[in-house]
Amino acid sequence: MNRTHTCGELRIEDVGKKVKLAGWVSKRRNLGAICFMDLRDRYGLTQITFTEDWAEKIKDIRNEYVIEVSGTVAKKDVPNPKLATGEIEVIVEEFKLLSSAKTTPLIIADETDALEETRLKYRYLDLRRRPLQANLLIRDKICTIFRNHLHNLNFAEVETPILSKSTPEGARDYLVPSRLYHGKFYALPQSPQIYKQLLMIGGMDRYFQIARCFRDEDLRADRQPEFTQIDIEMSFADEEDIFAVVEGCMRDILKNIKGLELGKFERLKYVDAMEYYGSDKPDLRFDMKLQNINELFKDSEFTIFKNVLANKGVIKALVLKGQAKKLSRKDIDKLQEFVKIYQAKALAYLKYEDGLFSGSLAKAINDNEKDGLVKRLQLENDDIIFIIADDKPIVDAALGALRVKLGHDFNLIDDSQYHFVWITEFPMYEYSKEEGRYVACHHPFTAPKDEDVDKMLSDKGNCYSRAYDLVLNGYELLSGSVRIHNQDMQAKVFEALGLSKEEAKAKFGFFLEAFEYGVPPHCGVGIGLERLTMILCGTDNIKDVVAFPKTASAMCLMAEAPNTVDDLQLKELGIGVKNA
Amino acid sequence: MNRTHTCGELRIEDVGKKVKLAGWVSKRRNLGAICFMDLRDRYGLTQITFTEDWAEKIKDIRNEYVIEVSGTVAKKDVPNPKLATGEIEVIVEEFKLLSSAKTTPLIIADETDALEETRLKYRYLDLRRRPLQANLLIRDKICTIFRNHLHNLNFAEVETPILSKSTPEGARDYLVPSRLYHGKFYALPQSPQIYKQLLMIGGMDRYFQIARCFRDEDLRADRQPEFTQIDIEMSFADEEDIFAVVEGCMRDILKNIKGLELGKFERLKYVDAMEYYGSDKPDLRFDMKLQNINELFKDSEFTIFKNVLANKGVIKALVLKGQAKKLSRKDIDKLQEFVKIYQAKALAYLKYEDGLFSGSLAKAINDNEKDGLVKRLQLENDDIIFIIADDKPIVDAALGALRVKLGHDFNLIDDSQYHFVWITEFPMYEYSKEEGRYVACHHPFTAPKDEDVDKMLSDKGNCYSRAYDLVLNGYELLSGSVRIHNQDMQAKVFEALGLSKEEAKAKFGFFLEAFEYGVPPHCGVGIGLERLTMILCGTDNIKDVVAFPKTASAMCLMAEAPNTVDDLQLKELGIGVKNA
Repeated sequence: MNRTHTCGELRIEDVGKKVKLAGWVSKRRNLGAICFMDLRDRYGLTQITFTEDWAEKIKDIRNEYVIEVSGTVAKKDVPNPKLATGEIEVIVEEFKLLSSAKTTPLIIADETDALEETRLKYRYLDLRRRPLQANLLIRDKICTIFRNHLHNLNFAEVETPILSKSTPEGARDYLVPSRLYHGKFYALPQSPQIYKQLLMIGGMDRYFQIARCFRDEDLRADRQPEFTQIDIEMSFADEEDIFAVVEGCMRDILKNIKGLELGKFERLKYVDAMEYYGSDKPDLRFDMKLQNINELFKDSEFTIFKNVLANKGVIKALVLKGQAKKLSRKDIDKLQEFVKIYQAKALAYLKYEDGLFSGSLAKAINDNEKDGLVKRLQLENDDIIFIIADDKPIVDAALGALRVKLGHDFNLIDDSQYHFVWITEFPMYEYSKEEGRYVACHHPFTAPKDEDVDKMLSDKGNCYSRAYDLVLNGYELLSGSVRIHNQDMQAKVFEALGLSKEEAKAKFGFFLEAFEYGVPPHCGVGIGLERLTMILCGTDNIKDVVAFPKTASAMCLMAEAPNTVDDLQLKELGIGVKNA
Repeated sequence: MNRTHTCGELRIEDVGKKVKLAGWVSKRRNLGAICFMDLRDRYGLTQITFTEDWAEKIKDIRNEYVIEVSGTVAKKDVPNPKLATGEIEVIVEEFKLLSSAKTTPLIIADETDALEETRLKYRYLDLRRRPLQANLLIRDKICTIFRNHLHNLNFAEVETPILSKSTPEGARDYLVPSRLYHGKFYALPQSPQIYKQLLMIGGMDRYFQIARCFRDEDLRADRQPEFTQIDIEMSFADEEDIFAVVEGCMRDILKNIKGLELGKFERLKYVDAMEYYGSDKPDLRFDMKLQNINELFKDSEFTIFKNVLANKGVIKALVLKGQAKKLSRKDIDKLQEFVKIYQAKALAYLKYEDGLFSGSLAKAINDNEKDGLVKRLQLENDDIIFIIADDKPIVDAALGALRVKLGHDFNLIDDSQYHFVWITEFPMYEYSKEEGRYVACHHPFTAPKDEDVDKMLSDKGNCYSRAYDLVLNGYELLSGSVRIHNQDMQAKVFEALGLSKEEAKAKFGFFLEAFEYGVPPHCGVGIGLERLTMILCGTDNIKDVVAFPKTASAMCLMAEAPNTVDDLQLKELGIGVKNA
């Protein structure tokens, strides 16, 4: 062992001890003939002090050299209150160079302005930066808390295959050519969905896995081609049971990592989330609900409102309290541009100041309607109302996004809060314009609500399911559902999705067959580990919580993967590269 | 929740309680109008009793139906001492069919004589068998013990990429075609070797990962195309440190799983293991060493011995105590056939009975030599000696294998023992006849022994390394080494392996570059999780400790993976299938 203590360990009580430390030189200062260095490892920084005698031997030592020193702990004349070890220094008595270093292409410091490309290429240097190390340690801690919590509840971690068969999540699979069966391929799993359900059929009762998953998608900023899912499934259980398990895990995590005791988890039906927040992942750290004001305008003379209501559209309002004076015409122009992203044709507004309305709608509505607004929206002086009238999905999406934007822009959000909400009873299907058919909203193994079983084939647009999400501060943290455990029901869902019996058999034959041998009721969730870690680490960049991330074009700049391979390898696999 | 208790939970103290249970019907017996069923889940079996009133409603219920019952716990007239719940039964008051079942293609019982093909195809049914569930639970427990132990020592679990670049372990890689860069491929990792060393260079200090690894090899009985490695790496550490960490883990595991307190772990240099046991994974649960008897025959007149010694070969003996009378000519013939597998030309033997020698060698050696054998081998009445004279590697391999065979055949091995031994100082290189050059014995990042640094290029056959294995009961449980942390040394090893600078750069360029920025001394191990689990579960079949195993030809019979894919998928990947 090159050390008796880490660089984060020594304290004033250790003064006088003979110690050995090892680490990276992180700063070097000469004071006359005396030389001070900060020695760094994962645990901290310790000042080591070289007396004059060492001058010649250490003259070449620079930042990022790895050294080992032995010496005596001494009290520092001027303590450094910023460091846990700041009250002591180590006076060096023996010294050994372990490894030298060139000048690093990025500076090893908490803050960096290095290009992302440089940081990814020299990831091993970027990883020396304390914030990245801290993130990886938090990620590990989250996993540990999950594992302990779930083990205590009799969940067993079971590993499912990576060399597997295409799962029906709908995203593109990564494929692995088989050497033994030319023309056949394994698929890397998008999730262990089918395997975990088979484990329930196999009687494992309570399963979890911190599982690697893969999607060959064009990547967004918060996606990686491989990611990790905390995957849970339980038998003889329903929503209440799985909610209790997940809430227990989250309470443990927030308590251990943030020192917070969480209150009751809210619940909101999907339709209500859309109605009041215009989103199925509402940020509930602030209120500011969307308010339906159709009723106020049912006799409106204003042509736009009239037409919208005649076409079964909706008129919804969002009230920003006490900001009417602050918002300039230009500010409002920007917001009007913003809602267009969400296909809204227009964003109307009304300022309410000293009992009077001004703004784009002020002349279009009558006094009666104005009084109605004051009452319905409980307006106070200096409030500003934003109104969109359009088809409901457009109104919800646009006002929902506007709500979040205003929440951030006007500091309505308390960053120290962690607000969880279960969104329940998602639609069973959603219509895919691309595919010209209904597709599964969650996945095709999701059970419909008992009372909607009859609508499964006849009224797909109004059929709701036992799928649920857990949302934290506006982020979808997990998805899950109560699964179908009955083969007839499963066959019906495939029918509803337009899969013929033959297609269903080809895709899921072995899985459907398993349903013929006694299936327990079961349900589960898949929790995005990176997402949760990002929120707890306070970063928007998924690369900050992944040790060796890939770029948006799925490349590892450090290892240069993917890369070309020998022709012999391809020949063995029976495949060839086609020219574009 | 479909239950208040599991099927393994109720005891005599619960008599009188109202309970709800759910599970699979595992046996049904009618006694007049009363019907008894065993209800099964992962936790156990409980007898449930249906009174006459239920007869009509339950008449169709058969084995493997999933049911839910509510009722009252009652004391059984005749307890079943084999069951933890054997003193009670539940008298059914409510009943619900949850899922029906066809007759299963294999019987759900502890013992099965179903074909392996059937068991793999219906793995979800095979998994209902208690021994398989128990194995998966032990596997999970082993992981938990490792994680706890390592976390307590400040090791952090870090996930490394699965979509990665070819690692140089020498086995064949599984490849994943890139959709965005046609003609380029990811490789699935054979181990996280390079990533974990980069984590050390990145200052993570102590890393572990329970990591999925992949090898596209023609499979032997104890191999799977994907397997799990408990991967550990630590900085500022050497053999003593890593041995202490691993021994601590193993002590925890044996204590928790087998209730055993382990003694001191033995250590044996590679050359001594070969000398005394003819194997680098000696089973030390019994002694029976190979003994070099060259000295006794240095003046032998016996042509074979003379020639062998003249050619720098060796003569070694193995003594089987007290079995001379038992072994027939036919038994010995079989052993003589056995050693031929290991290229030995002949197996000589001598029986020592009543002070006299008989057997194939009895006439070839003189009295002096016979006396020498008695003394040197401490012969007692009824011992039998096996002798092979040949080149050392052949003698070691053949007698080493014979030793293990005799150990098993003559019950010399105490099955309840867990005998660990570290094998140290492996050769740095081994000569590959196939490739016509020296290859790395462990992997090319292994440090040479300090005193052998000079031999690295000049005397490869006599250069030993700081690589080590941990062997348990004759199985190699893990491999590891102290790594090179100096770029010049690393370059030298590549040179010794016949890699040109260009080749080394193309293969490991980014890794070599990392060595220029300050590298801590580090070392580590990779532990085969399946191997360890197999030993602790007492099975020789790796499929018994994998939830969804593949066949020897790397196929999943259940999911039918690998399989054909859409032409469109291949087109997107820019690859085509070539006809053989």
